[in-house]
Amino acid sequence: MSELRRDPIVNRWVIIADDPLRSPEVSMGTEEAILDDPCPFCPGNEHLCPPEILANRPSDSYPNDSRWALRVIPNRSPLLVVEEDLRRMGEGVYDKITGVGANEVIIETNRHGIRQSDMTALELENMFWAYRDRIIDLKRDSRIQYVQIYKNCGASAGASLSHGHSLLMALPIVPRTISDEIDGSKRHFENKQRCVYCDVIRQETQLETRVVSETRMFVAIEPFAPRVPFETWILPKRHSARFDEIEPRELSDMASIFKDVFSRLDIALSSPAYNYIIHTSPSGNNNEEYYHWHMEIFPRIKIRTGFEWGTDLYINPTPPEASAAFLRGLVV
Amino acid sequence: MSELRRDPIVNRWVIIADDPLRSPEVSMGTEEAILDDPCPFCPGNEHLCPPEILANRPSDSYPNDSRWALRVIPNRSPLLVVEEDLRRMGEGVYDKITGVGANEVIIETNRHGIRQSDMTALELENMFWAYRDRIIDLKRDSRIQYVQIYKNCGASAGASLSHGHSLLMALPIVPRTISDEIDGSKRHFENKQRCVYCDVIRQETQLETRVVSETRMFVAIEPFAPRVPFETWILPKRHSARFDEIEPRELSDMASIFKDVFSRLDIALSSPAYNYIIHTSPSGNNNEEYYHWHMEIFPRIKIRTGFEWGTDLYINPTPPEASAAFLRGLVV
Repeated sequence: MSELRRDPIVNRWVIIADDPLRSPEVSMGTEEAILDDPCPFCPGNEHLCPPEILANRPSDSYPNDSRWALRVIPNRSPLLVVEEDLRRMGEGVYDKITGVGANEVIIETNRHGIRQSDMTALELENMFWAYRDRIIDLKRDSRIQYVQIYKNCGASAGASLSHGHSLLMALPIVPRTISDEIDGSKRHFENKQRCVYCDVIRQETQLETRVVSETRMFVAIEPFAPRVPFETWILPKRHSARFDEIEPRELSDMASIFKDVFSRLDIALSSPAYNYIIHTSPSGNNNEEYYHWHMEIFPRIKIRTGFEWGTDLYINPTPPEASAAFLRGLVV
Repeated sequence: MSELRRDPIVNRWVIIADDPLRSPEVSMGTEEAILDDPCPFCPGNEHLCPPEILANRPSDSYPNDSRWALRVIPNRSPLLVVEEDLRRMGEGVYDKITGVGANEVIIETNRHGIRQSDMTALELENMFWAYRDRIIDLKRDSRIQYVQIYKNCGASAGASLSHGHSLLMALPIVPRTISDEIDGSKRHFENKQRCVYCDVIRQETQLETRVVSETRMFVAIEPFAPRVPFETWILPKRHSARFDEIEPRELSDMASIFKDVFSRLDIALSSPAYNYIIHTSPSGNNNEEYYHWHMEIFPRIKIRTGFEWGTDLYINPTPPEASAAFLRGLVV
């Protein structure tokens, strides 16, 4: 069984898979190639996947038949499972937790091989709504402290299948990135009685130099201190700590800015590999006043060096003002 | 001029190069290939590099001639320079600092194309001594808060030249990874009056399951919560906060365990790309009692996914007990 282990010095957790199929000898190989022949995520191949958890399908269709627009399925070999008991254990100076949680796959569309910039507004709205539904459902389990939604697009961003899919990892801990953001935004709120993300949105929309795209309810910016060239954040203008409290009226606006941003990135960077991550409030955390959900996008065009590994400090050759101007200037 | 920018929410800094040669259009390309024809780091090609800062050379040779065993040179296009004035500036909610510091290259050997596992004990001792010398020299500048020594081996680990070299980045800030370790080890010391790294060394050398290699003065372990398969740490058994206080009598032992560890990793992982990073105490930080310098090694055999980007939480398919047993079992 897999387990979560904490570094004894800093508050960093690692999921140790302990999968007999992944012995040292096996894990030595290079990364798996992208497999999609046959594609398990295509309509008609549902039998290659575990039974669906959620699907958008016509009312006269049946679970796991081939008439669907979006499906959510469990990961075939999940690292974390809800069937496990939550146990917290010590081992000398070390701490660990049993692998309680869930891994799911959101198959974004029934169309094979299209990029997210080519998805229709409706497909994107359905995708965001599925993210929301799964977070709300998983949060009912009080052992789940955080539901991480993320996307790997392209082999060099960690994807192992090319059919468009997002990933979900429900965790018995709050990831350090999120707890650091909550601590930082709490400090800002205690000092100034304002949300730091709202301050950023105000400053960026006034200044405009780092704005990539703006709609009525969202803004996309190149952040002031981007870790990689063309790092992009999408933020809701309405202050809200939780992605799963997104309102139906915000969905089409979110789909529209998302499609615009990814169309620009695809043109600018020749359809790059990328990751995105939804940052939202942990379950049961009372940070409504100062935390602000958002999406962070990382085009994978630069190799992480030892410097970045060693310092969590990044060297970025592209000022965000330059990448924002470049992206804004493109005709989409 | 480049500058350091702080993320407004968390204490994470980014060096923004603002190099006209690295416009958005240029940075879109894939990573540079490894260039070494001609190799600027080979004897006879000294004219291709800036003048040396330090060298191991016979007493009858001259600076920048071809008779040397090791050389330290400034980076040809440094991101940070000592000639810059240190200025700390605000920009609305944001903070930035001018690009004060230094980037240097340690050319580890005059022999082209050998891996560190093939360096002689003497070459390795000279390399560690050069690291130490450069840290001591740069710390004299009170604006330098931290000197980061690191290594990129292989194109997929961020190296752009194949001739063996290490890198040095002197910084006007303390990197977050280091300040987090200092905070964590301070907390442990306040609770228990013991160094957490000394506790780790004690537990690991007693248990032996995660030990890769051990000498009289050093131990190499797979840490309890490794971020990547075969992550390895080398720690001095003598409690010491600063790498630059390494003693001459420790050098040959450090060279010996280093060579042993890299020989094992090269056999186990077929000469992988890797990074290593020296973690040491910042200048002028009074943490002698609780911080403990060490080296962290990351073989680059696994792609970082959106999950790792989004959470600073890692999925590792290889338990450290398995990789340690595998490495220990190899005949070197």
